[in-house]
Parts: sequence; C-alpha cells; structure tokens
Amino acid sequence: MEGDQAAAAPVLLNCFVSPFGNRARIALRRKGVAFEEKAENLAAKSPLLLSSNPVHGKVPVLIVGGRPVCESLVILEFIDDAFSAAGEPLLPADPYARARARFWASYIDTKMPECAARVWRSPKGAAAVEEGKKDMVAALKTLEAELGAKPYFAGDALGYVDVALVPFAPWFLTYERLGGFSVAAECPALAAWAARCVRENDCVAKSLPEPEHVFQFVCGMRKMFGLE
Amino acid sequence: MEGDQAAAAPVLLNCFVSPFGNRARIALRRKGVAFEEKAENLAAKSPLLLSSNPVHGKVPVLIVGGRPVCESLVILEFIDDAFSAAGEPLLPADPYARARARFWASYIDTKMPECAARVWRSPKGAAAVEEGKKDMVAALKTLEAELGAKPYFAGDALGYVDVALVPFAPWFLTYERLGGFSVAAECPALAAWAARCVRENDCVAKSLPEPEHVFQFVCGMRKMFGLE
Repeated sequence: MEGDQAAAAPVLLNCFVSPFGNRARIALRRKGVAFEEKAENLAAKSPLLLSSNPVHGKVPVLIVGGRPVCESLVILEFIDDAFSAAGEPLLPADPYARARARFWASYIDTKMPECAARVWRSPKGAAAVEEGKKDMVAALKTLEAELGAKPYFAGDALGYVDVALVPFAPWFLTYERLGGFSVAAECPALAAWAARCVRENDCVAKSLPEPEHVFQFVCGMRKMFGLE
Repeated sequence: MEGDQAAAAPVLLNCFVSPFGNRARIALRRKGVAFEEKAENLAAKSPLLLSSNPVHGKVPVLIVGGRPVCESLVILEFIDDAFSAAGEPLLPADPYARARARFWASYIDTKMPECAARVWRSPKGAAAVEEGKKDMVAALKTLEAELGAKPYFAGDALGYVDVALVPFAPWFLTYERLGGFSVAAECPALAAWAARCVRENDCVAKSLPEPEHVFQFVCGMRKMFGLE
C-alpha cells in the first residue's frame, strides 16, 4: 500500500513484468493516486482476476470502489477521467492532439505485443524470430520518427503515448538477446527517450522491472513452453 | 455534401461497405455535423488516402481543417471531443461508464474483424470458415449478454458501443450465407437490437449499406482472391 487512502485505494491486479499492467502503475503514480497491487501468477490466476475480467481473464485489472476496469489503455483513460483533479492529465486537451495520442497508443498495441511474441515465444532458431525482430525494428523506427526531436511524444512532459510505450523498454534486453539486435543501434533517439523517461520521472522509475529480471522471467517461460 | 458548411466540412475517406468507415458516418450524422465523403477504391487507393494515413493506408480517415484523424474508434472519440457542442455525446459522462463502453468497443475490434475474415476470406469449405463462425457466434453471444434487456448498450439511447457494433449488422447476411448459420436464431436479442438501431435512428439508417450489396461486394472480392 502506498499513501494513506487505505480504505478507498484502488486495487491493481498485475504481474511485475507486464508492459500492460505497468502502464497502470505509472499512470496511478504520476497522478499521485495511492493504490494497492496484487501480484497475479499467470499460470494459476486468482479467482479475483477471473471474476473481475471474465471476458479476457488477463491482467491488468484496476478495481475502484469494487468495480473492475479492464484493458490497459481503457484503464489509462479511466485514470485520466476519474482522477482528473489529481496531477497533470495524461491526454492533452486539444481534440486533435488527443486523437493523435490515441492513434499512436493503438499503433503500439497493434505492433509491439505481436512482434514481441514472435521474438520470445518462438523456438530457438525459428524463422519467426527473425521476422518478428524485423517487424519490431520497423515499428520502433516508425515510433522514433513520430517522437522526432521532442523529449516526449506529447512534447515537454510525459504523456499518454509515453506511458503506453515505456513499459516495453525493460523488455528490450530480452528482445535483443533472443533476436540478436540492438535497439540503441537501430533507434538511438528512442533508446535515449526510454532512458529519459526513467531518469526524469519517478513514476516510471518506480514502476518498471529490471531488464535482467524480465529476461530471467522469459527464460523460465521458454523452458516451461519447451522452446529452449 | 450534406448541410451548408461547405468550406469547413470534414472529409471522410471511406468505402461504402466498411464497418469501420460507417462508424464515422453514423457518429457525424448523429452529431449533425455536415461532411463530405470521398469513396475509396481499396484496390487502387487514392494519393489522398495514402498521404493522410501513411502508417496503415486504410479507411476511414476523417480530415478536419486539413488534418487527418485515423483509426475508427479514435475518430469516434475525436468526433465526441471536437464537436462536443453538437448533439448528444457518444460516450457517457461517468468515468466508469466510459471505461465500460471503451472496453466493449475494444472487444468488438478484437473479435469481429478477425472472426469475419476467417468466414469470408477463407476458401469455400475450409475448416477456418467453421472455426471463424463458431468464434463469431461466441463473441456475438457475449455482446448479447452485455446488452441484456436494455434497448441500447448504454441504456435508452444509441451510444458509443452501438455505433461501434451496428455497422457489422449489414454484414450478417454475408457471414450467414458463407458460414451457414443464422444470427437471429443464435442471438435473437442482438438481431432485434440491430433492427432497432436502424428503425429508431436516422443516422444509422442513412449510413449503412444494403446487406445484399455487401454480399455482392464480398462475392466480387472472393472471385478476385480466387476463393470460389
């Protein structure tokens, strides 16, 4: 439990490596919203997770006042809507700028998990690894072009797109080791952006796992799936 | 061109059968926003489409004041944000109700296009058709359960989830003929909801193609793809 709103604190069902769940961690901390986190074991999901998200049975779920909110981008919008008096909004006020942010968050969700799965859930040496890596690098380059020379996607401060993308950064080491490439070599400005997000924002630094711990987690999963 | 806002009218790049493009049609008409529609030939996309949506090259694109907004759910949110003074909002005001609507719109986008593609883009008699049909019926039943006894997903009036889902209704005939099932038999309340959306809302009635025209369009596509 963080902060002192024990009775009313939202509960986040999460897994420490989940890029999706860690979006919610960052957004809640950025808003200064105290919350309780319950760690889910994805191999043996809790009755609370299954009853809170019967449709998908996936983390993250944010339970507020007993009511579950599911799907990480929906959770980010909810945090912006429900805690609008707390901290800076994640989404800008201008309708076009909001649409642009939502477009890129949707792009991240279309590309990153699917490319990542080909890289880390394929058998060693499979052609899918190389193809997944190639498509991921193309997606990261597209995102780097959108970032341009700005410090953050929305400009001078951490916003919706940053919060949607940065939880994938601790996975870069895993993608690099399994895919045989370097994000920093392919996309130097994006690698610098990821480092900046952590360095300049406590809410990010406190919310992301160590890249090495993600890699160990993935190695365990790969053994379980018989991929090594 | 509809209405009299010729100079400032948004331009919608669309294809008359597109469930995604037709979401934008419905939302604009529901808000009473005059717009111009440009029909895209998806086999020979216009330079305007490709320059307006360089990332995906897909309809719909809504161009407002020369600036493109892409991705249909992003467009719906943009219409709600940008034309907030016009007509009823698509999304409710309550943060939890907004999150719930966004969750179901996201569910529709995760399930419907993917199941539909297996039904109508697979070769005749392929196992994928039967599997796609089965998954589609399951998704429609899940949506029907969420609808419950309400006239519309949000309650008494057409809202965000209705606008996201109803443009698939003119495709039901095509899914039924190719998949060998009946939406009305499997999901009677959902079929009644689709009919209600058209009957009670001019913005819907004016925006959707005839089911038979969708089927003819699909037959042409299937011939082109060598699926018949």
